[in-house]
Amino acid sequence: MFPELKEKGERARQAARRLAALDTATKNNALKAIAEAIMEQEPEILSANDHDIDAAQEAGLSETLLDRLLLTIHRLDGIAKDVLTVAALPDPVGETFDARTLPNGLRIGKRRVPVGVLGVIYESRPNVTVDIAALCLKSGNAVILRGGKEAVHTNRALATAMAEACKKSGVPQAAIQLIQSQDRALVKDMLTANQYIDMIIPRGGAGLHKFALQHATIPVITGGIGICHIYVDESADPEKVIPIVHNAKVQRPTVCNALDTLLIHRDIAEDLLPKIADDLARAGVELRCEPRALSVLMGHAAARSAGPKDFDTEFLSLVLAIKVVDSLDEALDHIYQHGTQHSDAIISENYSHAMRFVNEVDSAVVYVNASTRFTDGSQFGLGAEVAVSTQRLHARGPMGLKELTTYKWVIFGEGQVRD
Amino acid sequence: MFPELKEKGERARQAARRLAALDTATKNNALKAIAEAIMEQEPEILSANDHDIDAAQEAGLSETLLDRLLLTIHRLDGIAKDVLTVAALPDPVGETFDARTLPNGLRIGKRRVPVGVLGVIYESRPNVTVDIAALCLKSGNAVILRGGKEAVHTNRALATAMAEACKKSGVPQAAIQLIQSQDRALVKDMLTANQYIDMIIPRGGAGLHKFALQHATIPVITGGIGICHIYVDESADPEKVIPIVHNAKVQRPTVCNALDTLLIHRDIAEDLLPKIADDLARAGVELRCEPRALSVLMGHAAARSAGPKDFDTEFLSLVLAIKVVDSLDEALDHIYQHGTQHSDAIISENYSHAMRFVNEVDSAVVYVNASTRFTDGSQFGLGAEVAVSTQRLHARGPMGLKELTTYKWVIFGEGQVRD
Repeated sequence: MFPELKEKGERARQAARRLAALDTATKNNALKAIAEAIMEQEPEILSANDHDIDAAQEAGLSETLLDRLLLTIHRLDGIAKDVLTVAALPDPVGETFDARTLPNGLRIGKRRVPVGVLGVIYESRPNVTVDIAALCLKSGNAVILRGGKEAVHTNRALATAMAEACKKSGVPQAAIQLIQSQDRALVKDMLTANQYIDMIIPRGGAGLHKFALQHATIPVITGGIGICHIYVDESADPEKVIPIVHNAKVQRPTVCNALDTLLIHRDIAEDLLPKIADDLARAGVELRCEPRALSVLMGHAAARSAGPKDFDTEFLSLVLAIKVVDSLDEALDHIYQHGTQHSDAIISENYSHAMRFVNEVDSAVVYVNASTRFTDGSQFGLGAEVAVSTQRLHARGPMGLKELTTYKWVIFGEGQVRD
Repeated sequence: MFPELKEKGERARQAARRLAALDTATKNNALKAIAEAIMEQEPEILSANDHDIDAAQEAGLSETLLDRLLLTIHRLDGIAKDVLTVAALPDPVGETFDARTLPNGLRIGKRRVPVGVLGVIYESRPNVTVDIAALCLKSGNAVILRGGKEAVHTNRALATAMAEACKKSGVPQAAIQLIQSQDRALVKDMLTANQYIDMIIPRGGAGLHKFALQHATIPVITGGIGICHIYVDESADPEKVIPIVHNAKVQRPTVCNALDTLLIHRDIAEDLLPKIADDLARAGVELRCEPRALSVLMGHAAARSAGPKDFDTEFLSLVLAIKVVDSLDEALDHIYQHGTQHSDAIISENYSHAMRFVNEVDSAVVYVNASTRFTDGSQFGLGAEVAVSTQRLHARGPMGLKELTTYKWVIFGEGQVRD
């Protein structure tokens, strides 16, 4: 194991023991101190970011990646405000649930406790460094952050500011630690450091998630990848269809909860599909249509024939696959076969169809008459999120503070023994 | 991938889709049919078990293992009754929780749904075959069982009876499937069959758990291994100490929730430790003492000097490690350093000490004034358990029906789109 990981792992483990016992006020004060430190050290942080941006430009990074990496005063203010939002959220630690008294008089219940130490592996967006650190601190977890090499100076400046704020506030400095080494082999070590890390969150593309699953012996929360569907039922309210489809596809096409596939019932396709297509075409969306949809949109400038992979692709861009279906059953089968269990929606005014969709589509988030773009920790009222999970255990969908906790059984007796 | 696994995996996946939508009555009727089938096919099952027992005797299996493998009419009745107990438990599927209405009018909540397909890898106890199948069916999960080679005929007879009962009751036959091959390489394939299996539960020794963690890309629930502690505080009620320690160590020493280490405060060790030792010695317990405990028990027939590994050993036998400590803090530190986060108890009449123990010991189950032997699904009122988890995510401690579920977010809108 890399000495840096071993040293930080040991410190994180010790910090986690203290963090689990911290009262809410101390944690909130530390979060406020972090927000202040970020504002006070704005010049240092922005200059470190300049350094990263210069290097990234020299390395020829794309405009999109440069934009992800870039910090401005405005963005930094936003990051600091997000920390204050986390401070204002209720503390999940300590809640008792499933509590009852057994016939033998034992008082038994589950108490919510932090997971312990999180290992987070991410790419170039420096706001992730602060967002995740704030959520971990509030939920009583220590975190070991391993950011991308493009953001190395920015992350260092942010982590220094946060660790100092922790120290001043009576929170272990090792609550938030940043791995300095950019050696890929250290990431592999992280994934098997079971003695130090309790949960791995990879935040990045499909390659990173697959790598983590392949190599980890620590539980991994995968997610962030979604082929999202909207099914327009024959009973759909036309007034709702265009705004929802537009929002889901156009408002921010580069993210995991954006729409990828539109399924539409044959009985309203003739009437509605051309209107949807006109609206999307105005926003620059390219439409990849299976034969029946194509025949409805014959001659439409934005319509093309769908290729064999178009219904199994997360586009992350202004492209939409479209299919006409004969029935709700066909839509359900399509989503079962092609979906990634992220976010899927039905637009329908038929009660039974809406209920069947909700009951039978087994995705992390299932919607009736709403845009898939809502799948997000802030939108769900969780304050923020560490990830959107598409695996099935522990947590599904947006993961906020509660999803960074686990529980222990606490049992109060008066001398009971087992028969 | 082994063709048998591929075929059963595909069938399980299809069955899981149907199982998730089954109503409670259908599932309960199938469970009752399973109990009846086990009773009706008693002759076939017992004769298959004879076959396994003969082979195991020829292979020279130990008496303990033979006893684990053995079915009798009495045991088979017990197994069938346990299935009826599961039928009588509330159905966890469909519960809505964390529900609220967002400011934009979206009605949002989590709905409890089955995990999907479970892969269970276990050893020679045939009752596991039925226990786990019943819990999986009730919670709407399909299960692929891979039992030990010693029980191959017994398991086949039990699985046949269960699959027939499912078929008769309108439940997919593939809800419960048994892997026939005894090739170890198939187990490795199971651990990476992500397309078919959502959760792996290994039930067996430390070697099996380690093997599963090393090779799995599917989430693994590890558990069943516990170095359990009781700390006898200086304020302990002497009347409670001997019954609890006796029960925890003696009542069934071969299981994971049995006591391994006794920590006792120096101020009452002189008085109480000889009495505890006398009681345990009468039950045949060997006492492995660190120097101070040994000096208190000087000359006691059952007392020996503890070896270097005795405080890091799960004894699974009538052996107990004993240490005298100066304070609650020393006890907490000892448990932190040597514990396996399974089940740990304090015996104390001091409120603050009891609370500190409960707050600071981070084990799956923490007890005040009760025996560690209660860590068990039936004892906790869960009806039964698929495993006692000592990992931290998804579930800790005894795992019953609820712990075999996950959730999806369900969101009802009236056309909302994201700003």
